[in-house]
Amino acid sequence: MSLLVMKFGGTSVADIKAIENVADKISAEVRAGHMAAVVVSAMSGVTNQLIQYCQDISPLHDAREYDAIVSTGEQVTAGLLSMALQKRGIVARSWQGWQVPIITNCQHAKARIEDIDTANLKEQLQNNSVAVVAGFQGISDKDGRITTLGRGGSDTSAVALAAALKADRCDIYTDVKGVYTCDPRIVPKAQKIHKICYEEMLEMASVGAKVLQTRSVEIAMKAKLSVQVLSSFENEVGSDLRGTILVSEEQIMEKELISGITCSRDDAKITIRKLPDMPGIAARIFGPLAEANINVDMIVQNIAADTKETDLTFTVPKEDVKRTLNVLRQYRETSQKLSNVRFEHSHDVVKISIIGIGMKSHAGVAQKMFQVLADKGINIQVISTSEIKVSVLIGEEYAELAARALHSAYNLDSCE
Amino acid sequence: MSLLVMKFGGTSVADIKAIENVADKISAEVRAGHMAAVVVSAMSGVTNQLIQYCQDISPLHDAREYDAIVSTGEQVTAGLLSMALQKRGIVARSWQGWQVPIITNCQHAKARIEDIDTANLKEQLQNNSVAVVAGFQGISDKDGRITTLGRGGSDTSAVALAAALKADRCDIYTDVKGVYTCDPRIVPKAQKIHKICYEEMLEMASVGAKVLQTRSVEIAMKAKLSVQVLSSFENEVGSDLRGTILVSEEQIMEKELISGITCSRDDAKITIRKLPDMPGIAARIFGPLAEANINVDMIVQNIAADTKETDLTFTVPKEDVKRTLNVLRQYRETSQKLSNVRFEHSHDVVKISIIGIGMKSHAGVAQKMFQVLADKGINIQVISTSEIKVSVLIGEEYAELAARALHSAYNLDSCE
Repeated sequence: MSLLVMKFGGTSVADIKAIENVADKISAEVRAGHMAAVVVSAMSGVTNQLIQYCQDISPLHDAREYDAIVSTGEQVTAGLLSMALQKRGIVARSWQGWQVPIITNCQHAKARIEDIDTANLKEQLQNNSVAVVAGFQGISDKDGRITTLGRGGSDTSAVALAAALKADRCDIYTDVKGVYTCDPRIVPKAQKIHKICYEEMLEMASVGAKVLQTRSVEIAMKAKLSVQVLSSFENEVGSDLRGTILVSEEQIMEKELISGITCSRDDAKITIRKLPDMPGIAARIFGPLAEANINVDMIVQNIAADTKETDLTFTVPKEDVKRTLNVLRQYRETSQKLSNVRFEHSHDVVKISIIGIGMKSHAGVAQKMFQVLADKGINIQVISTSEIKVSVLIGEEYAELAARALHSAYNLDSCE
Repeated sequence: MSLLVMKFGGTSVADIKAIENVADKISAEVRAGHMAAVVVSAMSGVTNQLIQYCQDISPLHDAREYDAIVSTGEQVTAGLLSMALQKRGIVARSWQGWQVPIITNCQHAKARIEDIDTANLKEQLQNNSVAVVAGFQGISDKDGRITTLGRGGSDTSAVALAAALKADRCDIYTDVKGVYTCDPRIVPKAQKIHKICYEEMLEMASVGAKVLQTRSVEIAMKAKLSVQVLSSFENEVGSDLRGTILVSEEQIMEKELISGITCSRDDAKITIRKLPDMPGIAARIFGPLAEANINVDMIVQNIAADTKETDLTFTVPKEDVKRTLNVLRQYRETSQKLSNVRFEHSHDVVKISIIGIGMKSHAGVAQKMFQVLADKGINIQVISTSEIKVSVLIGEEYAELAARALHSAYNLDSCE
């Protein structure tokens, strides 16, 4: 008898009919002899509506009240799903985050889970009852108020719960069939990946694959938890080929050179022109941005040969462009030497990344990427790399062309 | 500096605009130097939508899950109102029932408040901060799960909170201007009652005046709490003539013979024909109904002179007619003697009640009522009385005619 954590998000619990469908899936696992803890998101549109209410009252609202408001969506789904299970003769009950309790820090609206007290849930599971836990939420250890984990936080709820319960597997049901070699809307020949290692999934999540929240992959990796991403709209229970399973690197026998390609349109490019080329200048620029909680990603600095001036280019999330420019302008005020400095920004960029654990042991992977793009006449604006990832920033209009060319070049195209 | 509890229900918090209006009202009280604890209902339509979801899944659902689901409506309003107050520079925070905590028994979906721990709220109020409490909900002392108090339960939340906090006054803001001598939609000449004593309000609430939940009046009476019913859509703050105020009998100098008239279409009539006239028969009929939690109200038995058979007529809530007939049919199976018994039921009845504390010291009040109805040719089907109330069951088509005639006869018509 194994213990499963099953998570149903987004369109999986869109409406009553979808919730009934989810109840069928859970029933099948329970009747197959498994213990099940379930984590759910809000019904379609509910969270957005609640956020809109908050915005309507004030764009600058109290995050503690925001949390109390938006957490209700998951509370409703958990109750309804418990009812739907009971109707099928399955013993079930719902749990709000504070009831479990799922303890978080007090960073309202983007809290981190610190601890999950599983005593109550374990007792319930051992009595063959399904625990239906409201995702996305917890309770702050400091003020005893409801917290939420940020967008996509239900994934994190599920993986953290599975780790705390020492579950045999965590199944993340979603509206896609699994993790793909690239977004099939961009690359029609993209294929479903059957096995992917945590490190690769982490890189993919952080550069735009929206299947799993980054934080949830981190937790799974730390706990060496077997996580499966699969579709809630296909009757594949019991099948061997279900979705995509996340495993440790050593569990993948034959490592692909490149496992996946991602396209992210979430970033904008900022360029600082005529920056005096003096020691510590980068620290002085990025310090205030870090303080303002602006996440700077790719950075490139053109070394000046003769003018003693340099150009600095970097990317920030599109929604932070305004704040970034404000911080930079304030910095410019601090010194006479900076009076010539100019700021430029562009939204018309896309970040293309190739990710693969095989890159560690193979040279020339990045070089091949640059060559493929050069052959298509695509100019690379910024480059950044990690041990298992190469990202390039290119003009937005080249997104599909670049992704498809790279997908073919690394032999990822499906045969169909 | 006085302590007010203000309750806003129904259409008062219909949407964001209405919530902003409520925030203005509270701000005015705070700026006038009062401490304020606020109790809110769900936004318009929200509770009905949530109940519909539960019904869609199963008409026979777990009341504990129902409570977890429907309580979210008030949680959202409390958060939004706190934000709206903060926008006005007022310090405020929301409280869910379990946070206060408002302790109830474990009768889910119709729980009774057993205790309110006011320590947290008092501390907040003394710091000149407004406490916004989600109405209609509490936490069960037994299982630690969310409970709700039944329809209209937010009134009870407010009055119980005011009693626990020893508030100077509890203001119930609603969509009517106060308590009227009769429903103005039935009797256009109905007048607003300025002062009414608890006992009268209790009788009126129990026979169909939907302004306040019966339970809330009981609590106010016990605590001798000053409760005011007033409109949330009129700017009358500070005015002498606001709404209707509930007080003790001794605080009303000149007692009206009749204070109000109510019409209730909530009941149906059941008649049992050819019941053997033997001792204990009524107990044997009503015992099983009480066990089935069916609330029998008016009862009349026609004594049989010669046939040794009797007719028994009584009223039950319309929604319980089906269950009542089932219980009665089961009873009929128990004995051969009952095989001739026949059951009839009718939905076409209305209960008209006259209520007045002055009735205690005046004879002939009921007689006058019967005469007025007789003069209009209206047949009385059942009569029931209490110390300060006379109720009659009549044909539904006579509702308006009877109410208007009685309203005039007891000098309640307005002069306008």
